[in-house]
This record gives sequence, C-alpha cells and structure tokens, in this order.
Amino acid sequence: MLIEYKEIIDKELRLFSDKLPSLSIYDPIKYIISNGGKRFRSSLTLMAADLFSNQPLLAINEAIAIELFHNFTLIHDDIMDQAPIRRNLPAVHKKWDENIAILSGDLLYAIVNQLLSDSSSQSPTLHQIFQQTAVEVCEGQSLDMEFENLEIISISEYINMIQLKTAVLVACSLKMGALIGGASKKDAQLLYDFGFNLGTSFQIDDDILDVFPKEDNFGKQVGGDIIEKKKTILFIDFLSKASEEDQIMVNDIIDDKQLSKDQKVSKVKDFYLKYDVLKVAQESKNNFYNKSMISLQNLSLPEEKKKIVENFSVHLMNRKF
Amino acid sequence: MLIEYKEIIDKELRLFSDKLPSLSIYDPIKYIISNGGKRFRSSLTLMAADLFSNQPLLAINEAIAIELFHNFTLIHDDIMDQAPIRRNLPAVHKKWDENIAILSGDLLYAIVNQLLSDSSSQSPTLHQIFQQTAVEVCEGQSLDMEFENLEIISISEYINMIQLKTAVLVACSLKMGALIGGASKKDAQLLYDFGFNLGTSFQIDDDILDVFPKEDNFGKQVGGDIIEKKKTILFIDFLSKASEEDQIMVNDIIDDKQLSKDQKVSKVKDFYLKYDVLKVAQESKNNFYNKSMISLQNLSLPEEKKKIVENFSVHLMNRKF
Repeated sequence: MLIEYKEIIDKELRLFSDKLPSLSIYDPIKYIISNGGKRFRSSLTLMAADLFSNQPLLAINEAIAIELFHNFTLIHDDIMDQAPIRRNLPAVHKKWDENIAILSGDLLYAIVNQLLSDSSSQSPTLHQIFQQTAVEVCEGQSLDMEFENLEIISISEYINMIQLKTAVLVACSLKMGALIGGASKKDAQLLYDFGFNLGTSFQIDDDILDVFPKEDNFGKQVGGDIIEKKKTILFIDFLSKASEEDQIMVNDIIDDKQLSKDQKVSKVKDFYLKYDVLKVAQESKNNFYNKSMISLQNLSLPEEKKKIVENFSVHLMNRKF
Repeated sequence: MLIEYKEIIDKELRLFSDKLPSLSIYDPIKYIISNGGKRFRSSLTLMAADLFSNQPLLAINEAIAIELFHNFTLIHDDIMDQAPIRRNLPAVHKKWDENIAILSGDLLYAIVNQLLSDSSSQSPTLHQIFQQTAVEVCEGQSLDMEFENLEIISISEYINMIQLKTAVLVACSLKMGALIGGASKKDAQLLYDFGFNLGTSFQIDDDILDVFPKEDNFGKQVGGDIIEKKKTILFIDFLSKASEEDQIMVNDIIDDKQLSKDQKVSKVKDFYLKYDVLKVAQESKNNFYNKSMISLQNLSLPEEKKKIVENFSVHLMNRKF
C-alpha cells in the first residue's frame, strides 16, 4: 500500500536532485539519491499525514528530509563498517574516497536541516522531534560499533541499540507526518509508539529471517549474519545460554576454512536449535508487534483507516526476506 | 574586548559538557569542548546581541550552538586533512580513531541542531540563516580539498573558498546575535556583511602574516605555509605571475633536503618579493577591511557602540600572529 507514496517520493527526489548545485561535492549526493531504496521512512511520513488530513503532500518536505537523513547515515555508516557495496553499487567511500564520503555526508545532513528550516510546516515541536531522533540515531550507531567489540551483551541492551539505531527514525517519520496532518498530540504519540514497536519487531524479525527464512525463500543465501559473526538477537541469546565448550565449537565452525558457507550455517543452526534461541527471539518479536497493535487500536481514527495501517503492518512482517 | 564574552561562553560550555550523557561516544565531544579555543564566533554572537539589546545572554543558546558547530567542523576537517594535533593536543581521530571521530562529529552536529530547536529564541529566519551557513561551510571545505589538487586557481576562486569555509560562519554568528537582540532586518544584514568582509580580510591577513610577520614577532616560526606548499593567496599570486623557470625553482627549493626550513622560507620569500605578491594580498586585505567598515558605519547604532566594534576590528587585525 505504500507504493503510491514511494512513487511520489521518487519523483520529488529526482526534482530535488536536479536542482542541486553543480559543485562536485554534490555528486555523491546525487548518486545516492539516484541509486534507489525502499523509501520506507518517507512513505510512512506521507501515510501518516494522509491518515489525518487526506493530504499526504502536506508533509512532502519533511518526508524528503527524513529520506535524505537516512541516506546521510548510510554514507557514514558504510565508511565505519567498511561496507563496499550499497544497493548493489559501490558505496560512496569506494566510488570516491573516505574524505569525500565524510564531507558529502555532512553536507547532506546540512541540506536536510536546510530543507526543514525552509518548510512552511515547520514548528519548534517538529524540529525537536527530528533533532532528538538524529541524536538517538548517532547514539544507536555508537552502541552498534561498541557491541562488536564486547564479549557479552544482554538482549535488552541489544534491543535498546536497535531501537536507537533504527526504530526511532521509523517512529519519528510517522509522528512528524501525523502532526503535519493535524493529529492531536496524543494521536501523534500513539503513532510514534506504533512505529517504535513495529520497527523493533521488524529488526528482530530481520535477525530471525537470516537464519530461519520463510518456506518459499527460493535460493536466497541463508545465514549471512552467522558467517559475519554478527551479534544478532539469536547469537546473543546463544552466547548467554551455551556451555563454554559449545561456544568454542561454534566459533571454530565459523572460522573453519574447510567448511562451505552452507555447511557452517547448517552446523551453527543446530546449536541454535539445541538452545532454543528462536523461541526467545520470536517471543520478543511478537511482544513488540502486539504492543504496536495496541497503540494502533488506541488511535482516534476511523476503523477503516486503522485497518489500512494494520494491513500494511501484516504485509511488512510477512515479507519473505 | 571580547574577553568577557569568552568567559561566559567557557562557563556555559563547561555546564553543557557536564550535562552530557555518560555514553562513550560523548567522550570526544567533552574532550574537544575542554580543550579550549578562542570562542571567537560565539563571542561575536553575544556581542551582537549586546549591541542591540544590552543583554548578551539572550543569545547564549545560539552562541553555544555556533561554537559547537565550529568544533564539529574541526573534528571532521582534522580527519580529512590528516592533522594529528589540534590546540596542542591529539586530534579526536588520533586520540580515538577515525570511526569515532566521524560519529562523534555527526553527533555533535545533531546536538547543535537540538540546541537550536530547543531554544526559546528560535525562528524560521534563524534556522534558515544557520543551516544555509552550514551548507556553505561544507561547500567551502570541499573547495579547499579540491584546490589542493589543482595546478591553477584564480585569486577570486581562492577568496570565494575562504569566504565559504570561514567568513560566512563569522557573519552568521553576528547576524543571529543581532536578530536575537532585536536588530532590524537591515541592521542584521549590515552586521552580516561586516563580519563577512572582516572575516575575509582576516583570512587573507593570516596568509600574509605567515610569511611577513609584524616586526615584534619574537621567535615565532615563519613560513609554515611555504614549507607545506599551502595554496595561500601569496602562493596563488606567485603561480599566476612567475616564469615557468621560477616556478620550478621555488618547487625545488621547498623539496630540497639540504636546506633548513629557515633557508627555504628565506629563498621563497625572495621570489615573493620579486613578483610583488605582498602588494596584491595587502590590497585585497585592505579592500575587504574597508568594506567591513562601511557596513559598520551604516548600522543604526549609537556612535559609541560602533566605536566598540571598530576598536575590536582594529585589535583583531593588529594581532601579532
């Protein structure tokens, strides 16, 4: 259902990109805009405005700002994670260099702020929500980096990290759109909570799907997170429960150069089953999903509008990969 | 005369730093705040508010935001320039690492925006001025990086670069303070122009002083820019005028491992004198200084207040190094 919003966003981003100056530091910005993306967050902003006003375009500036902010974080995250590829194309720091990636990211965030400061919808409340979220997203990324070097993390620390790193921006996207659409403070906050919990549930599901994909997941590589030793909710739960011996064995399996990727994933999966880590992850996922549905039900919107949002949520959580 | 404002800023920054969360990504921010600095831009914001309202503290949030924004640019510039030292201490990317420097810089800019969005003085106009300036500062840094790899730059291109990289933030600091102090649009713009031209003049003077210091410059190292082959206004003017032969000779002198630094500087200085590059630089410096004084005179402020600003300008331009 977000596809119509995505088309609006894609069109606006093209217009926006075409108007950028010709100075070469804008090239990476034009590049990342043109490389696509789901436009998920910005579509939510339009949807939220639409829900309360039937005029999604009221929030177009803020939607574009949020989409560009997300892209700014991708440019800088890819440097920090040394990720060479983004959306099947070279990441900015690879296509240009790290300095250009740092500076074009900074410039992109400045452009985001300029867009927000030029918008006729602006208000102190909207600025506060957005910038508070920006601070939290940076905090989340810092925790993510820190956790890579830590032996032990608790599941609640992990969930706090993914909430800061990703759920708050999803929540902010909805809240800003709702406020611009004329929602009451209470409804705007309920939609924030909906997005925050749905975003958390979605991230947990992401960890689960990597190892336990849905049945008709034809041909997609399984277990990428295992191979990269990524600290997912499954791995964290395993580490908290497994005997020292089993922890060493899993580590050895992943490092074993004699094994194929599929063999490694299959062997580690057996350990995951042994310690029932899927159960904890699924409970957590369902818990956040149910919370999001409660917020949704409490919104003072007509039932048919709530149904639209619920259908979107079901669709989102039923994705195949 | 700015010393009283500097004391206010230093005190506020300490309070601000003490209230930051304990999360480790805030450590580099606390570090760079505690390492001092002239607090030049933020002092100008307080001064401008003071000129129009006699209440410098009206603009304290914006002054702090501007000072922190400046520090954010220093953290990222030091990565890009591979500068190991800042204010006689290890730069953030050296004391920690590049990833931490990128992310703590991003976080610092987010905090700046949060400060501005929480300020009771905020207005769409203030947000616009500030974010427009932020965009320009990034553009200036991009030109600076680009120019390092270019053979030929014109003096006007160079001046445009220093104006974007530094003068606009000086101008913005004054304009925001003026508006918060209740200045008319016209006066705020005059103070912007004053700062823009004075900032430009100051940067050109910086280039001149490196090679031609004032007489009582006891013991300070002269010619650091020459040794680093920095594209200063002097070097650019030399390159535009010198014979190919002389250009090659200057290049060979700087690269000559048999020569001491002082010998290199002295020999290159002879070439600068041969082509009279000091004259062009000084004319340019005076030109911008005179422009700034015209804007100052046109302000609708009592003469004694204009005199205060003029004295400050004279003091600024008469610094010894």
